[in-house]
Amino acid sequence: MSGLPLTFWFDFISPFGYLASLRIDALAARHGREVDWRPLLLGVTVLKVMGLPPVPQTPLKGDYAMRQLARHARRQGVTLGRDPRAAPPNPLPAARLFAWLRVHAPDESKAAAQAIYAAAWRDGLPIDDPETLRAVVTDAGVTQQAVAAGLADPAAGDLLRAEVSAAVAAGAFGSPFVIADGEPFFGVDNLELLDEWLAGCGH
Amino acid sequence: MSGLPLTFWFDFISPFGYLASLRIDALAARHGREVDWRPLLLGVTVLKVMGLPPVPQTPLKGDYAMRQLARHARRQGVTLGRDPRAAPPNPLPAARLFAWLRVHAPDESKAAAQAIYAAAWRDGLPIDDPETLRAVVTDAGVTQQAVAAGLADPAAGDLLRAEVSAAVAAGAFGSPFVIADGEPFFGVDNLELLDEWLAGCGH
Repeated sequence: MSGLPLTFWFDFISPFGYLASLRIDALAARHGREVDWRPLLLGVTVLKVMGLPPVPQTPLKGDYAMRQLARHARRQGVTLGRDPRAAPPNPLPAARLFAWLRVHAPDESKAAAQAIYAAAWRDGLPIDDPETLRAVVTDAGVTQQAVAAGLADPAAGDLLRAEVSAAVAAGAFGSPFVIADGEPFFGVDNLELLDEWLAGCGH
Repeated sequence: MSGLPLTFWFDFISPFGYLASLRIDALAARHGREVDWRPLLLGVTVLKVMGLPPVPQTPLKGDYAMRQLARHARRQGVTLGRDPRAAPPNPLPAARLFAWLRVHAPDESKAAAQAIYAAAWRDGLPIDDPETLRAVVTDAGVTQQAVAAGLADPAAGDLLRAEVSAAVAAGAFGSPFVIADGEPFFGVDNLELLDEWLAGCGH
């Protein structure tokens, strides 16, 4: 088995992505793998490319997703600091900044993403507010200069668009969506199957 | 923990339902549970109630479902005798008959459903052909008289409609969809979580 990094696709808007983000690095490490965190936008993949409505507005599935979310949060011992039925934060500013940091401050970019996720879903902070986003990301170890540059650089939007296109090209559409050696795993409810697959039993 | 039966909702059109059907009774029995098999129609729940397109026609998700299906089939050691990308059989005649047998021949109805699923997905037989359906169900132990009565009784359609309405009322929309003490589990990829939940660890 190769030791290629896993790709972890996620959207800051997604509480399931948050739950997976708390597990994915440890899961991968148990199999000697690194994880490449990459941003996608459900507003593009699900709404535009797949042509589906948002899950919370889908009859039956919206209620099921809330049950599934509560179950997985309990299972992981996580308390959500934001009501998942309320209007979610706009993920675009954070996703643009993360796409920029991946390129220009790669060593700090994962910590920045983890801090943004915690701010959004553990602490219930408005990560679409520029000052909140700036504070969260600098607290995570990114320099003030880098955060300011990332927030100001119009190329951040292009970098994010390229990431979302890469996600679609790779067949990734949800959050979380993990790809391991070309094998796709969608949803926090497939992390055990990913674990089994990495152990070599699930081929 | 109560010993109430689990409800296993499924559609004969669904290969994921077939894979789950091969595991659900043994899984439940490990926790001292029986399983009540009940029919639903994805053409009603997904297409009409949820307003979604069929998964095979949904960009990205259709391809993912095929990967997921192949993975779970390998994992269970199951070989599908029907190409899941080809047009599926019309599930209505079999679903109507099964809804009728649940009421009028309850002791043989589960064996009939298992035989229909095996015919459709293991053997690739046209279960929407009345003579095929008749042969499969009588081979499974239902009397010729009962099969003939079930195929001829117009009330079978009403019984099936009532089942589908009951599924929607219970929040069940997919195949497989298991409900255990009110807790919903959608998809063959959630059977391990169901197992864990029944063991009392997943609350």
